[in-house]
Amino acid sequence: MQQKHDSLGYTRIRRVAPIAVNTHGGRAKCLQRLIRLDLPVPETVALSFDAVRKLADGQSVDVKDMLNSFGPRPLLCVRPSSEDPDWGGPGAMLNIGMNDQRHAELTKSHGAEVADALYLRFVQSYAIHIERLDPEEFENEKSLPSDQALKAALDAYENETDEAFPQEVEVQVFKVLRSMARAWLGTTARLLRQAKGAPADAGLGLIVQAMSFGVGPGESGTGLIQMIDEDTGAPLIRGRYKRQSLGRFRLSDDTKALYLTSDPRGPSLEQDCPDVFDKLTTYSALCRSKLREEMQIEFVVENGKLAILDAVRVNRSTRAALRTAVQLAEDGIIPKSEAVLRIPPRSLTELLHPQIDPSTQRDVIASGIAASPGGAVGRLVFSSAAAQASSARGESCILVRRETAPEDIRGMHSSVGVLTERGGVTSHAAVIARGMGVPCVVGASVSINTRSKTITASDGRVLKEGDTITLDGSAGQALLGATKMLPPAKDYWYLQLMDWADDIRDIDVRANADTPADAAMARGFKAQGIGLCRTEHMFFDGDRLTVMREMIFAATDADRQEAIARLLPMQRSDFIELFRIMQGQPVCIRLLDPPLHEFLPSDRAGAKELAEALDMPLSDVTRRIEWLSEFNPMLGMRGVRLGITFPEIYAMQARAIFEATIEASKIGDPVVPEVMIPLVSAMREVEMVKTQVDAVAAAVRNEKGADFTYRLGVMVETPRAALRAHEIAQHAAFLSFGTNDLTQMAYGLSRDDAGRFMNSYIQQGVFPEDPFHTLDVDGVGELLTIGADRGRKAAPDITLSVCGEHGGNPESIAFCRAAGFDYVSCSPFRVPVARLAAAQLVAAEEKASNLRRK
Amino acid sequence: MQQKHDSLGYTRIRRVAPIAVNTHGGRAKCLQRLIRLDLPVPETVALSFDAVRKLADGQSVDVKDMLNSFGPRPLLCVRPSSEDPDWGGPGAMLNIGMNDQRHAELTKSHGAEVADALYLRFVQSYAIHIERLDPEEFENEKSLPSDQALKAALDAYENETDEAFPQEVEVQVFKVLRSMARAWLGTTARLLRQAKGAPADAGLGLIVQAMSFGVGPGESGTGLIQMIDEDTGAPLIRGRYKRQSLGRFRLSDDTKALYLTSDPRGPSLEQDCPDVFDKLTTYSALCRSKLREEMQIEFVVENGKLAILDAVRVNRSTRAALRTAVQLAEDGIIPKSEAVLRIPPRSLTELLHPQIDPSTQRDVIASGIAASPGGAVGRLVFSSAAAQASSARGESCILVRRETAPEDIRGMHSSVGVLTERGGVTSHAAVIARGMGVPCVVGASVSINTRSKTITASDGRVLKEGDTITLDGSAGQALLGATKMLPPAKDYWYLQLMDWADDIRDIDVRANADTPADAAMARGFKAQGIGLCRTEHMFFDGDRLTVMREMIFAATDADRQEAIARLLPMQRSDFIELFRIMQGQPVCIRLLDPPLHEFLPSDRAGAKELAEALDMPLSDVTRRIEWLSEFNPMLGMRGVRLGITFPEIYAMQARAIFEATIEASKIGDPVVPEVMIPLVSAMREVEMVKTQVDAVAAAVRNEKGADFTYRLGVMVETPRAALRAHEIAQHAAFLSFGTNDLTQMAYGLSRDDAGRFMNSYIQQGVFPEDPFHTLDVDGVGELLTIGADRGRKAAPDITLSVCGEHGGNPESIAFCRAAGFDYVSCSPFRVPVARLAAAQLVAAEEKASNLRRK
Repeated sequence: MQQKHDSLGYTRIRRVAPIAVNTHGGRAKCLQRLIRLDLPVPETVALSFDAVRKLADGQSVDVKDMLNSFGPRPLLCVRPSSEDPDWGGPGAMLNIGMNDQRHAELTKSHGAEVADALYLRFVQSYAIHIERLDPEEFENEKSLPSDQALKAALDAYENETDEAFPQEVEVQVFKVLRSMARAWLGTTARLLRQAKGAPADAGLGLIVQAMSFGVGPGESGTGLIQMIDEDTGAPLIRGRYKRQSLGRFRLSDDTKALYLTSDPRGPSLEQDCPDVFDKLTTYSALCRSKLREEMQIEFVVENGKLAILDAVRVNRSTRAALRTAVQLAEDGIIPKSEAVLRIPPRSLTELLHPQIDPSTQRDVIASGIAASPGGAVGRLVFSSAAAQASSARGESCILVRRETAPEDIRGMHSSVGVLTERGGVTSHAAVIARGMGVPCVVGASVSINTRSKTITASDGRVLKEGDTITLDGSAGQALLGATKMLPPAKDYWYLQLMDWADDIRDIDVRANADTPADAAMARGFKAQGIGLCRTEHMFFDGDRLTVMREMIFAATDADRQEAIARLLPMQRSDFIELFRIMQGQPVCIRLLDPPLHEFLPSDRAGAKELAEALDMPLSDVTRRIEWLSEFNPMLGMRGVRLGITFPEIYAMQARAIFEATIEASKIGDPVVPEVMIPLVSAMREVEMVKTQVDAVAAAVRNEKGADFTYRLGVMVETPRAALRAHEIAQHAAFLSFGTNDLTQMAYGLSRDDAGRFMNSYIQQGVFPEDPFHTLDVDGVGELLTIGADRGRKAAPDITLSVCGEHGGNPESIAFCRAAGFDYVSCSPFRVPVARLAAAQLVAAEEKASNLRRK
Repeated sequence: MQQKHDSLGYTRIRRVAPIAVNTHGGRAKCLQRLIRLDLPVPETVALSFDAVRKLADGQSVDVKDMLNSFGPRPLLCVRPSSEDPDWGGPGAMLNIGMNDQRHAELTKSHGAEVADALYLRFVQSYAIHIERLDPEEFENEKSLPSDQALKAALDAYENETDEAFPQEVEVQVFKVLRSMARAWLGTTARLLRQAKGAPADAGLGLIVQAMSFGVGPGESGTGLIQMIDEDTGAPLIRGRYKRQSLGRFRLSDDTKALYLTSDPRGPSLEQDCPDVFDKLTTYSALCRSKLREEMQIEFVVENGKLAILDAVRVNRSTRAALRTAVQLAEDGIIPKSEAVLRIPPRSLTELLHPQIDPSTQRDVIASGIAASPGGAVGRLVFSSAAAQASSARGESCILVRRETAPEDIRGMHSSVGVLTERGGVTSHAAVIARGMGVPCVVGASVSINTRSKTITASDGRVLKEGDTITLDGSAGQALLGATKMLPPAKDYWYLQLMDWADDIRDIDVRANADTPADAAMARGFKAQGIGLCRTEHMFFDGDRLTVMREMIFAATDADRQEAIARLLPMQRSDFIELFRIMQGQPVCIRLLDPPLHEFLPSDRAGAKELAEALDMPLSDVTRRIEWLSEFNPMLGMRGVRLGITFPEIYAMQARAIFEATIEASKIGDPVVPEVMIPLVSAMREVEMVKTQVDAVAAAVRNEKGADFTYRLGVMVETPRAALRAHEIAQHAAFLSFGTNDLTQMAYGLSRDDAGRFMNSYIQQGVFPEDPFHTLDVDGVGELLTIGADRGRKAAPDITLSVCGEHGGNPESIAFCRAAGFDYVSCSPFRVPVARLAAAQLVAAEEKASNLRRK
């Protein structure tokens, strides 16, 4: 068992020593930094990833040489040091080195009680965590006097293992190190850290440190200190100090602890030990400026002497992280680009929606897919009409539906949250809710009965209309009752960081906005224009829906023309309002896309009502509805196919856009509208619509005696359009990739029908991610690059963009930026996420190139 | 108006003269060939395409020099000579050169009646076709004596034009030539020939020939002769000869004509003029052996002297064309490969189905899409049950449905034809009918009322159940009543030609076959194995459907397993039968593909019945049906998604295949089954199914103590699978491209929903062709080549093929062969078409390379 000492591969941490995050882990590197700052860190040794791997492999090593670093009869603690602190690791082991002899010595120096307690704690930890003995055998001792408890534990150990408790420090240390090394390789530990992004071969380092005692004569104790409030990020000395403390100390465990600063509620370290307190605040400030981060310091006072055991990043809320990053940059400690890099873009959504107070106890009645973030409290309603009535009464409501359809949009607008039984992350409910910024949970584990107006949870509990629930769209849960909420935060720090992000980034961000309300929100989130205005939503409002239906049921061309003529002023006023809000910015309007049957009632009662309204026999109405119904609506007569079959519709829309352009340009900055043709699959479709739209433009110019410019482009959302982009680009000023439909068609998978198996697909690793949530770079991404390359080759000045759900995802933005796209467009609430993510791409590149230069 | 004669660009046709099909047209070339064979052709001059173009452009030319070729005072005829005789051209003009002087001379030589008649005919033709005068002005003369009639015509001409009828031959000829040149450029003429495949700039040549008179002293007359029967291709001297005939003669115009060969019905040329008859048969045989074609010869006898005016390909039926081609090859006149090239592959379908007698008067009650070829007569039925009942009574029936669904398959099997109101060329009805070889018309212009069991034609006529109609699946029509039919012909000549085709071709042809009946048909059509066996059709039969539904409704895993266990022996016996029929040939079996809801009833009555059968509450049944229903079934939980979600299904199918392999190999040649995974979009899907199928194979080998081999492959039918083919190919022995689904997904267009606008899309030229009918080479084709290239790069020995509707199309076969595919697979009835088309690709290449070598 005797080998050369270098086979353990330990390194004493000194100012100069080969310690790196990717060889010894973050904790080892941080401790070296503390030492370089002359902080009083006890003797510490670091074991590299390689050394720990060897231990786990069962190689026997000699630890004697390492022990010599700590002088005679050391007491030691061992802690994990993984590359990223988020990846976890085995728990720390304290008081290694305790044995009968050390016990006797401590009895003399610190008294029997302290010696018994320290020895007992070590025996218990060692038995349970290292020898994996039954914890129950070591828990009876609590009620006994300390000497009897210690004896009982030592006896229990011998009973279970048939060996006396090991007295040799070498044996104790070796077994502790090997046990921790092996725990790292356990399946659960591996899965947990991989879920946090650790690679499969992530290494573990270990830290061996001389113990400092927080018990004993003179001023002795352990404590924690940090210089900010972890919820808000505001400057504030936080922490506690506990005298005569035997082990670790947590902020939450404040029994008999001293406050750090002077406090009317009780004694404080500042008053009782001003010199220790001064040193701690000095060290904290030093850490902040030199480690360029807000650190939480773990310390021990041993007989009046301060020792710094460890320092970790202050664990903080998104709001605190944002304020800290901005404050560090404003103090000149980090560059602004570094501040921008420190905030995970997706975490911004927390700031922009009300959130459920994390300290609240949750009574979960349904779990589902987190489809639109934020929290909301409201009473249950089961129809759009009920939602509108509730909203009119001034009562907040949560709309519950099997799934939503276009006719539910007004109800969704009237609700503070939406809960559905069916659908996936890009189902109708999810997409619309995200666009509106309304919290939404889809595919929830409940059974909805719309007739009895009840929902039955999977545990059998039944809720009825009017009952209050809390919807957590960020976590995908519905909670019983009203839960405490935190308000959204769009404060100075947020605005500052976003300003810096906008200065840095080099790809534009637009918003998908269908209504004036959406547009106002988009402006509020500083979108650089509207990338996708879906005109169909404009036709679902009361009167308009009726006219739309009259158009669909028109018996003659003249009737159809008459109905369309009545839609014209409505559309025109929509666009005038939109252009007024967005003035000076581009607005991209998609011509009508959905199949006509979406505008018709889906049930018999609705059909009857419609028959009355149109003064037609019910059978005629149902026959027409049936005729318009489709096997696969997603792949049916929609988009440009509709526009070519009923050219009057697009002609009306083009006229409304152009007339609105003239009107809006009278009252504000001139508007350059962009007209987008949906669902193109062949160049000829573009040519035909372009001819028509150009003719309408000429007619409007002529009639109104006013000039305007506009751009006509194509929504690339079929694989064929991407493949034939070189042809299509000849007739288009821009190509905007609709990644939702492209994903559906590349996979042959409807987003509405994917929910039933997507979760199991992801769990089984069939798909690495839900491709409707994270852009499928391999497949859909290749269609994007093919389309972009071919389009640009045919028309070098063509504008390229992505609209649709993926537009706001950091991964998609990275992809689009790399492919040289001009902008991404996403729902208004995701605009800040996209702005920050886009900035981070630039900042990360600069940082990497700076590092290379060094 | 005087120019150099060479500006007309005429060429006197001699043995040696620069006459070519692509400069002077087919008729000019053929006449030169007749001259080279020393046939007595009157003096003939050819005008090139360029010369005719100049005439049409209005260039004035001097025709005097050309007229000199014909000696003094010639009488001439002018005929068109386009590159392909099918492209048409203006009608011939006869007797050019007739004028007062010529009339006087002819009165002396041939008598007044002949002279009057010839002059009158010319004046009429000239006035109507050249000067475009009102035909009515020239039709009154019929009742008058010949001299008065002539005078009236000359007067009418002068009245209408204010000019006397032109007496100068130069003027007459020039105007005739220019008029015919311009007629070629008319819009109607251009559209008509473009519909037959002519290029936009197709040229017209003209033939000017000295007239031979079939009237006058001695033996004089005109006639036609050919050596085969144009319906059957059997050797038979066909034609007529008419004495003292003034103009052209058609075979159908047989008043007072002589038979050619001795005939009991009347006088014959053979008996009356044996020397003329001998010459004609000699010339005909000479034409056949030297022009390598069966020709129809037009001749004139003038005072006992034979003149050959023209010879054209005998216009013939497909059956006659086939027999002629084979006979020419057997006689050593053309090579076999040339015989193979002479039959348009698609025309074979005529031979394989009964056809409606083309001479029948048609009373069309509905027009639609020709979805499955052939003709059928039967009584109308409106449900599958009625079809089966009718079939049981031995009565032929035509099944009429709005559209068909999987549960209609048995009804379709029981019908002789299928007519639907909805759907396109690849709708369910169309695909299944083609597979069965049942004539089918979809998207028909009728309104079907299933309740009253009537169909209403667009002209208002109403037909009820039991009424007899004739369905023409080749023309896409339904005809009132029973129409005369021609039987199918799979005779010696057909079999001989197909044998030659099989010897030549270098790409395999397999059949899509789901049932033993399909497989037997596939063998009958000499398919080289089964390329696609869709297993789902096996589950729609009576008992099986019930078990399938029990599986779907299973409350527990054990129940599901139990139902699946009952399906196993049924599947196994299907496969044993299939393998027995196909022994020695590959059989590619696709694992279950359709969404489960296809196996459930679609209406309330069916649901009630099912609830009774399963002893469940109706509400449970409807809830389950509702839960399984999908927004876009085509893009839902089907194919491999089903296989991964319910792994028991594929495990059962794999076991049935392997157990059947062992059984079938005991009684015949060993079978190597191919197992195909449908709707793959990611490599991991293939890995997972492969792992499972391999495990089943190992278990079966172990249990049965028998060995077998099999191949596992992937159906590439999503764009993503094509793009990721390099990954997928690592786990697949073959890739079979499902072009139907690939087309649907490339275009974002469901084949079932396309019918509503596809016709108008094609008419407007938005799509050049229906992409479900003709492979879209630009888009879908690129996905095929991407998939093939990437797949082959990763696995050079991988087998590549196309299955699905496009597989049988000559254009698709050309594409697949060029891309190096191993085989195509199509419905059994298209196998002969595919075999011939594949052979033609090789033969055409060889012919081209032989021509280049010359």
